[in-house]
Amino acid sequence: MPHIEITNDLPGISGLMVQRPDTASVLNQVAETLLRSGSSPLDRGERELIAAYVSHLNRTPFCAGSHSAFAAAQLDGGQPLVASVLADPGTAEISPLLRALLRVAAEVQEAAAPVSDKAVAAARAEGATDAHIHDTVLIAAAFAMFNRYVSGLATEVPSDPAYYAAGADRIVNHGYGSAR
Amino acid sequence: MPHIEITNDLPGISGLMVQRPDTASVLNQVAETLLRSGSSPLDRGERELIAAYVSHLNRTPFCAGSHSAFAAAQLDGGQPLVASVLADPGTAEISPLLRALLRVAAEVQEAAAPVSDKAVAAARAEGATDAHIHDTVLIAAAFAMFNRYVSGLATEVPSDPAYYAAGADRIVNHGYGSAR
Repeated sequence: MPHIEITNDLPGISGLMVQRPDTASVLNQVAETLLRSGSSPLDRGERELIAAYVSHLNRTPFCAGSHSAFAAAQLDGGQPLVASVLADPGTAEISPLLRALLRVAAEVQEAAAPVSDKAVAAARAEGATDAHIHDTVLIAAAFAMFNRYVSGLATEVPSDPAYYAAGADRIVNHGYGSAR
Repeated sequence: MPHIEITNDLPGISGLMVQRPDTASVLNQVAETLLRSGSSPLDRGERELIAAYVSHLNRTPFCAGSHSAFAAAQLDGGQPLVASVLADPGTAEISPLLRALLRVAAEVQEAAAPVSDKAVAAARAEGATDAHIHDTVLIAAAFAMFNRYVSGLATEVPSDPAYYAAGADRIVNHGYGSAR
């Protein structure tokens, strides 16, 4: 049961956002900027994959399920590829650059500490630019926030896994903050 | 040395924000909404104190120094009170409600996991409403993000402690996102 009263039947951050539209607006803008409309050398599917992976590491099933579905809808490999990344980015069929960036993201997930020179150098060796490093760190950091908000307040997790795929159409086509 | 090139001489998040105005805008809106202009039962000094305390726990000196200065400028007890909270909220001269909320914030800092029923009940016993719990969790979560962004990219820390107090005038009087 959530720690605060949610007077709607939406799970996860969706319930919080309807409950508190005052803070929802800027949170949606963070997601929209970092994962969709902001310029980045990472395409939308790759950015969603970083969000899904960090949420998975943070054991926040609502966010992991949501962003996995949004990544799957925007990556050629679809859900099987996303599942393989969550299981082990080291063996998943992704580019060496994306694999190295997921290692950077995992370090950011772990603690508010400098990413190791080793992880940054490994990403650089695969072609990472400053923008790749910056955007990966900021997306991973943002999901330290979203995951804590959703898990910290003990929000509900959808009982039906199909919930996430249904949300993907809205996000992919209309963006964060679009009407439900 | 920062992990990405910062072509200005500003430390911490300030250097990142000038470097990347595209993402700075929404990050400033998060801080402005959660710590200043958004409605909350917590006053601005109390919200800044939560930000400072979480940043201190996350060992991110730039954010801890900045938000300590912003809290001190807006709380009757000033810098000595803020220093006593960072040293030990359990003995600092703050209200029992604020003390209980700082315990909630510390749990959010620790992990993306439900805040304990015990911590929530202790805050409720001191008069915490849903808005107190929500705003505390979201501010603590937001600083999981800001701290990771600032520390993860290995940004510079000001060598002069007076740097933080100088920033307080701008934030207190003009808000986040105001020109430097």
